[in-house]
Amino acid sequence: MEISALQKARYAYQPKLPANIAGAISDIAVELGKPTDSVADQAALKELFNHTYGKPLAVFAKGKGDADKKELTVGVILSGGQAPGGHNVIAGLYDGLKKGNPASRLYGFLGGPSGLIENKTMVFSDKFIDEYRNTGGFDIIGSGRTKIETPEQFAASLETAKKLNLNAVVVIGGDDSNTNAALLAEYFLEKGSAIQVIGCPKTIDGDLKNEHIETSFGFDTACKTYSELIGNIERDANSAKKYWHFVKLMGRAASHIALECALQTQPNICLISEEVQEKKISLNQVVEQICSSVIKRAENKENFGVVLIPEGLVEFIPEMKKLIDELNDAMGLKGAEFVELSSFIDQLYWLSHEISEDSYKFLQTLPPEIARELLMDRDPHGNVQVSRIETEKLLIGMVEKRLAKLKAEGVYKGKFSGLGHFFGYEGRCAFPSNFDADYCYSLGFGAFLLIALGLTGYLSSVKNLVAPASEWVAGGVPLTMMMNMEQRHGSKKPVIRKALVELDGGPFKAFDAVRDTWAVKTSFLFPGAIQYYGPPEVCDQPTKTLKLEHQ
Amino acid sequence: MEISALQKARYAYQPKLPANIAGAISDIAVELGKPTDSVADQAALKELFNHTYGKPLAVFAKGKGDADKKELTVGVILSGGQAPGGHNVIAGLYDGLKKGNPASRLYGFLGGPSGLIENKTMVFSDKFIDEYRNTGGFDIIGSGRTKIETPEQFAASLETAKKLNLNAVVVIGGDDSNTNAALLAEYFLEKGSAIQVIGCPKTIDGDLKNEHIETSFGFDTACKTYSELIGNIERDANSAKKYWHFVKLMGRAASHIALECALQTQPNICLISEEVQEKKISLNQVVEQICSSVIKRAENKENFGVVLIPEGLVEFIPEMKKLIDELNDAMGLKGAEFVELSSFIDQLYWLSHEISEDSYKFLQTLPPEIARELLMDRDPHGNVQVSRIETEKLLIGMVEKRLAKLKAEGVYKGKFSGLGHFFGYEGRCAFPSNFDADYCYSLGFGAFLLIALGLTGYLSSVKNLVAPASEWVAGGVPLTMMMNMEQRHGSKKPVIRKALVELDGGPFKAFDAVRDTWAVKTSFLFPGAIQYYGPPEVCDQPTKTLKLEHQ
Repeated sequence: MEISALQKARYAYQPKLPANIAGAISDIAVELGKPTDSVADQAALKELFNHTYGKPLAVFAKGKGDADKKELTVGVILSGGQAPGGHNVIAGLYDGLKKGNPASRLYGFLGGPSGLIENKTMVFSDKFIDEYRNTGGFDIIGSGRTKIETPEQFAASLETAKKLNLNAVVVIGGDDSNTNAALLAEYFLEKGSAIQVIGCPKTIDGDLKNEHIETSFGFDTACKTYSELIGNIERDANSAKKYWHFVKLMGRAASHIALECALQTQPNICLISEEVQEKKISLNQVVEQICSSVIKRAENKENFGVVLIPEGLVEFIPEMKKLIDELNDAMGLKGAEFVELSSFIDQLYWLSHEISEDSYKFLQTLPPEIARELLMDRDPHGNVQVSRIETEKLLIGMVEKRLAKLKAEGVYKGKFSGLGHFFGYEGRCAFPSNFDADYCYSLGFGAFLLIALGLTGYLSSVKNLVAPASEWVAGGVPLTMMMNMEQRHGSKKPVIRKALVELDGGPFKAFDAVRDTWAVKTSFLFPGAIQYYGPPEVCDQPTKTLKLEHQ
Repeated sequence: MEISALQKARYAYQPKLPANIAGAISDIAVELGKPTDSVADQAALKELFNHTYGKPLAVFAKGKGDADKKELTVGVILSGGQAPGGHNVIAGLYDGLKKGNPASRLYGFLGGPSGLIENKTMVFSDKFIDEYRNTGGFDIIGSGRTKIETPEQFAASLETAKKLNLNAVVVIGGDDSNTNAALLAEYFLEKGSAIQVIGCPKTIDGDLKNEHIETSFGFDTACKTYSELIGNIERDANSAKKYWHFVKLMGRAASHIALECALQTQPNICLISEEVQEKKISLNQVVEQICSSVIKRAENKENFGVVLIPEGLVEFIPEMKKLIDELNDAMGLKGAEFVELSSFIDQLYWLSHEISEDSYKFLQTLPPEIARELLMDRDPHGNVQVSRIETEKLLIGMVEKRLAKLKAEGVYKGKFSGLGHFFGYEGRCAFPSNFDADYCYSLGFGAFLLIALGLTGYLSSVKNLVAPASEWVAGGVPLTMMMNMEQRHGSKKPVIRKALVELDGGPFKAFDAVRDTWAVKTSFLFPGAIQYYGPPEVCDQPTKTLKLEHQ
């Protein structure tokens, strides 16, 4: 296997561990707090998680533990979308297991949770693990989006775990995958099995966090990668002085990525889905906001700029959400009729009878290519493919149209030329930043300790992340503590609550305090590429979000 | 001005100089070779460049020079598209001038060559220069695409240069801008002025190179930035195992960027425009080539991959070139008629009478959204906007269609899902790699020496670039030496010959030797982000193109 110079160099990087788990394994014990409650719906969750509800918070501390006594067999799963650092979670878990007892074994389940259901595994060796240390991607064992949902799947999972003589299963995943981990932990106990389940908080979206989980891994590296590109584009805009760049950023539900990238790069505009939803901002108001910046900057002879757009924005704009819902209903019921229509005009006419007058009028205000995308590009169930909507082009088209009108009225005298970008896949598999490399390794190492010290139904946690790694504090958070009940596919389900951008939180308030200045005055910041070497202020910093939330 | 941690750290970087220009200025002399000839059209060029044709190659060497004696006034221009390192050329030039004589002055012409024509300038100071050292972008003085072409523009340029009491003008630009520099050098002499003109070879496209210019600056950083992203996407593809990513890369005329990125990342397919043209490869053959890889990989259960596409590809595909030419002709002549037509169907019908049968048939084989782009998205002169053609989507659409047919025939049994990307603006203004930072600084420093030692009509050059910087050799290459006569806008013009990818050159041959393997077997390489610190094999390497051409 040919590898790059950086990959080879990164193999040699030794991730830093928090002081409370860096010593001899036999000197590490666990301190347990008081019983905990879920964030909401306590009664319902207590009933559903009869065996695992209400467990105490766990923190590792100096003490006489027995984590080095046991020969353990553990299986690990990578679940859901890729995030930088996944390989290091596995490396930390593996190193912990071997440090505890060299006879311990780590299995990898192949291709995500389906590997557990179908008993598709491999066994890790030193040589194999060494080829994945401090690298990006989930290619070490592959990932998958299968959920363990049916009674048969739960039973098959237990059967696999028993066959392999597992002491524990570690699930590396986001909110959904860790909800699954909680259900699995409960199920195993209910079936009289002592097999433990531990989760690790992963997602570049940054929406798996709460009072006890400061951030999910991968968010740091992904945001730094996108910010590198945004900064480069800003510098280009500021040099060429002729384009407005509209940059869409991955993140369907929450806008943490867009907000963090804005804090790192200081663009002219950054839209935040949560604000759009909370303040019921219409598409026209969004367009007006952008045009206002374009016009003011044109008055300063700055006919260029950068706009950041969270991927999920359109779903948070009230009239767009209504249109999409109505289109999905109409297509779902009478999709066959629609498909028969040969031209866009015929389709529009047909739709005029199938959706509300408001939505029909709104549809007609959209740029034709976007309207066409909405109608034509549907999934096998007839649903509009929201992730395929080119929001950056939608906004460029509408801004162009609005500016043309304002120019005709003499209000606007500048030049506008828009260019669209979408960054997502570029950041999910980058080499993890030192922060993510250290954090992930610590999460994995902590997961081993949670197992060795006999806990189940916990999420591995590392706190105090704004301090240097030696001052971090590793422990565990009961999965049920982060849960509430939510409507899913027509019924109430227990789920880990997603963390959205809070409009009264530190990061948004810091952004809000300066964004009016950024909108007019060029205030670009150029973070450059992630550095793995060099001065600590360059290569060892956490995200601005983390600092603003915890300093 | 708020700046990023990396920017602050990079200010402190001291670029390396070649040994032959690193010593005391008074110890540097110039050695001149024999008279030279242009690469072609010697007689015509001799006549056009009566004063500057045939000058000898220049190399700096130890000797008694008088470069430290003169108080010099120099003006510098950034011309054309941004390339990482432009600021360092200016810093090197400035530091050289001040080292030679602290009383020397450097003017910056604002906004490109128009700054010289219109006498728009600023004077550099230590403090100002220090804020741009080792940074990306051309925002230090701005750039522009104005060419000095008319007699009035030449006269105005001379007038400005005289007004400012300039000893010399330095033009930082690509082949066109340096052709302009050659004309300006000749013009000044013809008008009896002693004002010198020196060029510096810039362009991320990498097509300004020849026997004496090993590479243009910016190519290294841009390719490393794109390769970072391609590598990340490859790792994502290899983890998710469900997408084929089609990545379009900047570079209209030459495919050096695509080829270098392919050598750095080892994708499944990389298309090379020069090969497509030379072998007259049709669009269908390109599609077949991709499908062949998709099918073979599907047989190995690898329903994913990465395809690199040079931006200019469509212009090199014979039938596409013909169609675009015919569309331009038809639209140019009867554009008004066309605009009157309200529907795509009407437009198609109209065109069936205006373009050749072959082209009309070919147009109908294109995916509808691409056909629509070709017809609708035209510039103010009615020309098809080639740079706006989404070649990545064109190929995805055609591959999808072809695979559907092959699936129906039972030849293909896999799944295909394509995603498009375009990388260009992301790399033009990155912080220059150590290579580009050193190379650019050396080019600028060398430009000062060429001026101080009395030369004009030269391109600053640094050779032996695959060796460590201390072994580099700085000198100058007569601009006329790189020129030939080419047809431009209906008449023969003197121009610097563009370097295209040579099918019998080292880089293409290295690629050709392994590409059949890459097409089937996953051989991805993940270079990661550019590193400015760390082990030399990570942070101090030139491009693979340079190594393959010069080692």
